[in-house]
Amino acid sequence: MTDQPFRGVLAPVLTPFAADLSPDVGRFTAFCRWLLAQGADGLAVFGTTSEANSQSADQRMTLLDSLIESGVPGDKLMPGTGACSIDEAVRLNKHAVAHGCGGVLMLPPFYYKGVSDDGLFAWFSEVVQRLGDDALKIYLYHIPPQTGTPFSLDLIGRLIKEYPNTVVGLKDSGGDWSNTKAILDAFPGFGTFAGSEVFLLDTLRGGGVGCITATGNVNPTGIRKVFENWETPEADALQAAITKTRKTIQARTLVPALKAIISHYHSDPEWGRLMPPMVPLSAEEISGLIADLDADEGFSIAPATLENAAE
Amino acid sequence: MTDQPFRGVLAPVLTPFAADLSPDVGRFTAFCRWLLAQGADGLAVFGTTSEANSQSADQRMTLLDSLIESGVPGDKLMPGTGACSIDEAVRLNKHAVAHGCGGVLMLPPFYYKGVSDDGLFAWFSEVVQRLGDDALKIYLYHIPPQTGTPFSLDLIGRLIKEYPNTVVGLKDSGGDWSNTKAILDAFPGFGTFAGSEVFLLDTLRGGGVGCITATGNVNPTGIRKVFENWETPEADALQAAITKTRKTIQARTLVPALKAIISHYHSDPEWGRLMPPMVPLSAEEISGLIADLDADEGFSIAPATLENAAE
Repeated sequence: MTDQPFRGVLAPVLTPFAADLSPDVGRFTAFCRWLLAQGADGLAVFGTTSEANSQSADQRMTLLDSLIESGVPGDKLMPGTGACSIDEAVRLNKHAVAHGCGGVLMLPPFYYKGVSDDGLFAWFSEVVQRLGDDALKIYLYHIPPQTGTPFSLDLIGRLIKEYPNTVVGLKDSGGDWSNTKAILDAFPGFGTFAGSEVFLLDTLRGGGVGCITATGNVNPTGIRKVFENWETPEADALQAAITKTRKTIQARTLVPALKAIISHYHSDPEWGRLMPPMVPLSAEEISGLIADLDADEGFSIAPATLENAAE
Repeated sequence: MTDQPFRGVLAPVLTPFAADLSPDVGRFTAFCRWLLAQGADGLAVFGTTSEANSQSADQRMTLLDSLIESGVPGDKLMPGTGACSIDEAVRLNKHAVAHGCGGVLMLPPFYYKGVSDDGLFAWFSEVVQRLGDDALKIYLYHIPPQTGTPFSLDLIGRLIKEYPNTVVGLKDSGGDWSNTKAILDAFPGFGTFAGSEVFLLDTLRGGGVGCITATGNVNPTGIRKVFENWETPEADALQAAITKTRKTIQARTLVPALKAIISHYHSDPEWGRLMPPMVPLSAEEISGLIADLDADEGFSIAPATLENAAE
């Protein structure tokens, strides 16, 4: 297994959309720089939270081009490059590798359900072999609530064994700690990320490398405190604080709630727009959410100033 | 509501793949012509059975170009043009309309789960409005076992009401007859297709227009007999025969079984190849399937001769 290209707290970056539903390049780039300035260890652009699966491959590649052109370093980026087809996954991965991305987060093919581990192994093998490039560092994206297609322990083990320099980690967004624990126990040295900061401290104690979490878009500083202090006596109290904030937010529909938070605290109504099939929260839901966050002593969010967006 | 562009038995056409996993244009085109010669009323190319969701949008469009160039008339074609993103769905639909396709079969966006009817309505509205072309005739593709996203009666009704000249029908692949019946009862004159020939006679008696069925790839003649004779005294016996054949085939994994059948009866090993994440049946499974079909008096399959492929 190779050295881990990523450790710490990564945000699956929210994507702002213009009125015509095209990705808003200027706001996206500024937001990425703001997240890095807040201490995010990397940017998992084009994840589930990014509404990336509501964007075409072309739209995602154009946005990545713009991000790199704006000066964000490729080694901080872990773009989502999963797709239903090998053809499209190869295209997205080649593009990411050409931009020097530190890694990629790959969904399994997610249309056909009930597919076998043999079929999934063949699918990933074909992608890895067509790339034929050790610069490709894949994080497997385990998120059965959306895909219906889990990565079994057996499949993970086969992929690591066959492609030890390429299949370097996994994000577990299944919401089931016992599964994350089983992966940590089975594959020491593998780059296992929790899919929610609720499991961050447990993941670090179990030998994992951090978390890639939706709420990293709005609470990167708080979450990073746990990563910085996980071996200190304060760790459990810090974890309790970020878990509380997480639960406040995820009591609402997650992606619309996150966009409402950025829109409110950054005073930018444009951020409230969602790409169909997602829809915004109602005004009443938003005011309830903001009231809850204002009352949460553990939560603070830095304004989107030029200084905060500087690197 | 407009006149129905399609009635009868449509096959969601299997896609043959070359050794490098690219779509095999020659075999695909010949097979489409063979299906039409066997009496298929239309070709739902790029459906679930077509492994279309394991092909990129570019691959599908190139294949459609080739099919049209080969002389298959556009009005016989109902390509799958669903996608997770509005951008890609618009692109696929524009391409289909430009080729004069009689209709399109549209999946809902299928990555994000638990999306609202409002969100789905907004998604389809955006696609229809960007096309802005009455030549677009959409059949909604209800297949919750793969998508996790059903078309509710309320959503279907809203789409018909808003776009009466565009949203003209639906394929119900949910496997639940009570849902098909509810759609037939709620929307008379709407082009409702059963997603399996098991429900063909019931669908026709309920006011539906036919079936779009995976096994239409191997048993088009048998299935069409039910469509031709549904108002005669023989209808129930004919239905029983095709139901029996269907159950023999779907006792196996469906798409690999269908490819094994074509490969065997057309004496063409190339047809046995699947696109990952699907995998072929084992040799033992294939011989069991063929033995069962050989023993099925109601099943026969025409050879792939030049005559049978002539129009």
